[in-house]
Amino acid sequence: MFFHTALFRWKEGTTPQEVAAVRSALEAMVPDIPEIRHYRVGADAGLVEGNWDFVVVADFDDEAGWRAYTAHPVHQSIIAELIRPLVAERAAVQSAG
Amino acid sequence: MFFHTALFRWKEGTTPQEVAAVRSALEAMVPDIPEIRHYRVGADAGLVEGNWDFVVVADFDDEAGWRAYTAHPVHQSIIAELIRPLVAERAAVQSAG
Repeated sequence: MFFHTALFRWKEGTTPQEVAAVRSALEAMVPDIPEIRHYRVGADAGLVEGNWDFVVVADFDDEAGWRAYTAHPVHQSIIAELIRPLVAERAAVQSAG
Repeated sequence: MFFHTALFRWKEGTTPQEVAAVRSALEAMVPDIPEIRHYRVGADAGLVEGNWDFVVVADFDDEAGWRAYTAHPVHQSIIAELIRPLVAERAAVQSAG
């Protein structure tokens, strides 16, 4: 088991529509990447002051699965076109648990 | 379904023994909090420059489950005694997915 977690802070002025487009694109990508065992994305629930804005948690069998996900062209295109323009800060960890 | 994700950067000089103590204490806490559906902690695998150091992903049925976890005295004591002294930065998101 190997899992990847990324948290994001969006730039000021990021719209709910832009975030919804990120989310839809990521969810639509999942069937394209068979190495993904489980995939969750979500906006922060707004319960804690100072929280970040958005989370991705992706599970794989192993590091190779994560590498396939990271390098996948559909994923790379979502990052370049939809995510990167919105990102103020990003924090990530990959872990074997 | 409601999940909580926290990423940490440890202070310079944090030792592997201190991190192992955090991990053991969190894992030992899980049976004390019946609202936890699934719990994962892990150190960063060291594959990506700039990654953060440590991750917690906790799953609950709902927001109330997360609140029970957050407020639980064993959890609070681990935060105060083992985690907070080591934390340089913390980023968290709670999400209904």
